Amino acid sequence: MQFSAAQIAMLIDGKVEGDASALVGSFGKIEEAKAGQLAFLANPKYEEHLYTTQASVIIINESLELKQPVQAALIRVPDAYSAFAGLLNKYQELMTQQLTGIQQPSYVSASAKLGENVFLGAFAYLGDNVTIGNNVKIFPGAFVGNNVTIDDNSIIHPGVKIYHDCKIGKNVTIHAGTVIGGDGFGFAPQPDGSYKKVPQIGNVVIEDFVEIGSNATIDRATIGSTLIKSGAKLDNLIQVAHNVEVGNNTVIAAQAGVSGSTKLGNHVMIGGQAGIVGHIHIADGSKINAQSGVSKSIKMPNSAVTGSPAHDYTSALRSQAITRKLPELEKKVAELEKLIQQLMAEKIGI
Amino acid sequence: MQFSAAQIAMLIDGKVEGDASALVGSFGKIEEAKAGQLAFLANPKYEEHLYTTQASVIIINESLELKQPVQAALIRVPDAYSAFAGLLNKYQELMTQQLTGIQQPSYVSASAKLGENVFLGAFAYLGDNVTIGNNVKIFPGAFVGNNVTIDDNSIIHPGVKIYHDCKIGKNVTIHAGTVIGGDGFGFAPQPDGSYKKVPQIGNVVIEDFVEIGSNATIDRATIGSTLIKSGAKLDNLIQVAHNVEVGNNTVIAAQAGVSGSTKLGNHVMIGGQAGIVGHIHIADGSKINAQSGVSKSIKMPNSAVTGSPAHDYTSALRSQAITRKLPELEKKVAELEKLIQQLMAEKIGI
Amino acid sequence: MQFSAAQIAMLIDGKVEGDASALVGSFGKIEEAKAGQLAFLANPKYEEHLYTTQASVIIINESLELKQPVQAALIRVPDAYSAFAGLLNKYQELMTQQLTGIQQPSYVSASAKLGENVFLGAFAYLGDNVTIGNNVKIFPGAFVGNNVTIDDNSIIHPGVKIYHDCKIGKNVTIHAGTVIGGDGFGFAPQPDGSYKKVPQIGNVVIEDFVEIGSNATIDRATIGSTLIKSGAKLDNLIQVAHNVEVGNNTVIAAQAGVSGSTKLGNHVMIGGQAGIVGHIHIADGSKINAQSGVSKSIKMPNSAVTGSPAHDYTSALRSQAITRKLPELEKKVAELEKLIQQLMAEKIGI
Repeated sequence: MQFSAAQIAMLIDGKVEGDASALVGSFGKIEEAKAGQLAFLANPKYEEHLYTTQASVIIINESLELKQPVQAALIRVPDAYSAFAGLLNKYQELMTQQLTGIQQPSYVSASAKLGENVFLGAFAYLGDNVTIGNNVKIFPGAFVGNNVTIDDNSIIHPGVKIYHDCKIGKNVTIHAGTVIGGDGFGFAPQPDGSYKKVPQIGNVVIEDFVEIGSNATIDRATIGSTLIKSGAKLDNLIQVAHNVEVGNNTVIAAQAGVSGSTKLGNHVMIGGQAGIVGHIHIADGSKINAQSGVSKSIKMPNSAVTGSPAHDYTSALRSQAITRKLPELEKKVAELEKLIQQLMAEKIGI
Repeated sequence: MQFSAAQIAMLIDGKVEGDASALVGSFGKIEEAKAGQLAFLANPKYEEHLYTTQASVIIINESLELKQPVQAALIRVPDAYSAFAGLLNKYQELMTQQLTGIQQPSYVSASAKLGENVFLGAFAYLGDNVTIGNNVKIFPGAFVGNNVTIDDNSIIHPGVKIYHDCKIGKNVTIHAGTVIGGDGFGFAPQPDGSYKKVPQIGNVVIEDFVEIGSNATIDRATIGSTLIKSGAKLDNLIQVAHNVEVGNNTVIAAQAGVSGSTKLGNHVMIGGQAGIVGHIHIADGSKINAQSGVSKSIKMPNSAVTGSPAHDYTSALRSQAITRKLPELEKKVAELEKLIQQLMAEKIGI
Repeated sequence: MQFSAAQIAMLIDGKVEGDASALVGSFGKIEEAKAGQLAFLANPKYEEHLYTTQASVIIINESLELKQPVQAALIRVPDAYSAFAGLLNKYQELMTQQLTGIQQPSYVSASAKLGENVFLGAFAYLGDNVTIGNNVKIFPGAFVGNNVTIDDNSIIHPGVKIYHDCKIGKNVTIHAGTVIGGDGFGFAPQPDGSYKKVPQIGNVVIEDFVEIGSNATIDRATIGSTLIKSGAKLDNLIQVAHNVEVGNNTVIAAQAGVSGSTKLGNHVMIGGQAGIVGHIHIADGSKINAQSGVSKSIKMPNSAVTGSPAHDYTSALRSQAITRKLPELEKKVAELEKLIQQLMAEKIGI
């Protein structure tokens, strides 16, 4: 599919300078783009590329003053970055909307109910009593267990596994290989040293506008629900244990883990590879640094912590800095000791 | 499926108080349960919910004295929690037993042998010479490579991948997306700076009553077997490298990793995100704290370690506490230095 | 398939001692091997097993002098280990080469192009405009999205998911469950506290001779390409974020993570569970210890760092050692303080 500079300008409410009939069919970075690609320039640091790029059409800020002639057709807008991002969003939505129909072979239980404009890829599986909303896109090889509901406009990428009884909201995106609703890790120690499984009969509830990355694992609750609240964004390879609650618009970076029954507040930010123990509360707006290990509840909203075990960010940084100077500190103490011994010796000598 | 209070009382050897014909069809937490649900009360801290819950039937301790009238039918037993857990176990077993038959399309090699009462989900794959025991349940999209054996009563969840030649014992549960028997990470450095793959021709042997979480990876041995011994429990996203041995009833929490050829003893407990280097031994009953990095063998049984690199738990906690007081210690040394300089100066002055 | 000692000797250019017609059908460790297996002895430490092993054929160094009679047929070569490893490589290649044909049911778009000698497992999916080179082996349940190219001799294991537009080079191996080309983690904060997705329209490019373990995740670039350069080896459960570049022959151990836009040089070695922040450069030949957290660029080639935050290996080890002695240091400072107070008091007393 190709678009002219004039068509794009109309979509983003911009003004064309140069050849309004110039055609583009894909996107590129300004420094790498080829003929037939659309690029943008937002950061003045990269202005030099404007005069050398092969891109056929470039979106730029209306305030930018050209220092040399430009070969490409230009589209001027108040904010080039958000115009470009908005265009990408429209393009992605268009591509997703076009995806419809049921590829064969796929497995759809007789009791499953499908909305309108649904896409179901080959080798996808819909169990008994599954309910799929309108415009839902389920990619090849995804597994949707019995009694699961997936609400309107959600996208389930290839090979996602959703165990029975879980609920997925509207406009949710789950990336490839992620497992929703596997058993929580609960085993009761027995007198003979073995463990007996504690059945996990709850589910996972994912609210609207949540996005979850690839190969993450969100365990079902022992009883009740593991809950991912509206607008939360979770990256790849994240572990969310049974009965955890993740607050609204909370963001968790890759490979972080949250242990059982912990409640994360709203607008919490958790860095990559951080770990949080079970049965604690993290106050709204808390920032947990990458690789931190949080072992106690955070009670003050908007706290920032780091380290393992995690402590207040500023004092932890000071401790780290001094740790680095420890060899020096040790040396100084040894010197002081020598001086004191000298003083003591002289005193005795007197 | 619905059960009356009388039927449940018979199953768990309890006594009904109230309406013995009250019906329930699912389970709920006492504080959230709705009409038609079964709940339990074990912890006296939650007794208040007994008088307000919507649950239709509640299992309670026979010793509990009611302080107000209760709407629900009660079932009294010596220990409400274990009666409830036992009931859940029976329910889960019942649900699993009912699951039988071979869904289509699935792929079963002509040389594969299946036991009785097996379930094989759609898009599941059984390679050449695969042997599946009685009552084994293999969920949709699971891959079972050539020459694999899966013994009686084991459950293989959706999308599990088991490479060729691996052996799975009895009553094993493997959750969705986990990979058993991928190649160990072995590459020999070459003079030109590149790496040459060391073929990994061993397998993985998983003994009876092992449970493994979702999206974990257990690599095959270079030669011989990577071994997960009877009763071990592994959580989600765990890495077990080639030629590792995990002891009986050893428990490993989510996102932990064990490097090549390391042997974990029996009844070891490993916290989340902990890492263990290769080629070491961890003594029976050792406890390794979350996020620890174990770089040396642990020789004393029942040791507890923490930190990265990991050390004895008690002394590591002391060091951590002092690290936190480092700014103070640094200040004190500076003060002492000043005092000594003063003393020295006066001495010289004398 | 069985081979005689004479046949194997011919393959590895060795000399048979004993029964040249002895047959073997599989490989074993010398200490565990059974009749009908081929073993090797390279390390003199294990020589004792030579006299007790059940193996039928054993490859040994030509320099080894026997101290007792040996039952098995021996094959003498200059270097037993490399002869054995070479044999394994040949065996693996042979087994892989034999794997051809298209199992049913599988899904192949009408616009997909397949080379010669390709294997496509059941439930594998090839989207529109996919191009598959010669001798490529795609195992059951793998997903290959639209416009993906996979070049000659590459192996895609079961359940691998490759999103649209990604490019896989020659002789690449990707293990089960790994996801290539999932969306990068990019969300723009909105005034109301929610996040708006930044479309990820780039791709992933994997060059020749790369091997990637199981359940890893390599995200597609926002624009442009996430790049894994020739010869790089990545272990299981690794996270590579959008727009990252991994250099030639760089090796990354299990559960490590690299954040967005970071560039790793050539021949870098990264230990297990290490984390690297975004937008930095790691110089060629750098060594990053397991569980390290690298927060700044490493500018000196061949640097070694450890700790979180990561610092120069040698000084970090010194700091760690002193940290361990902190309780002692604290005690000494307290003693010095007492001595000084005594000296001060006496001075005043004078």
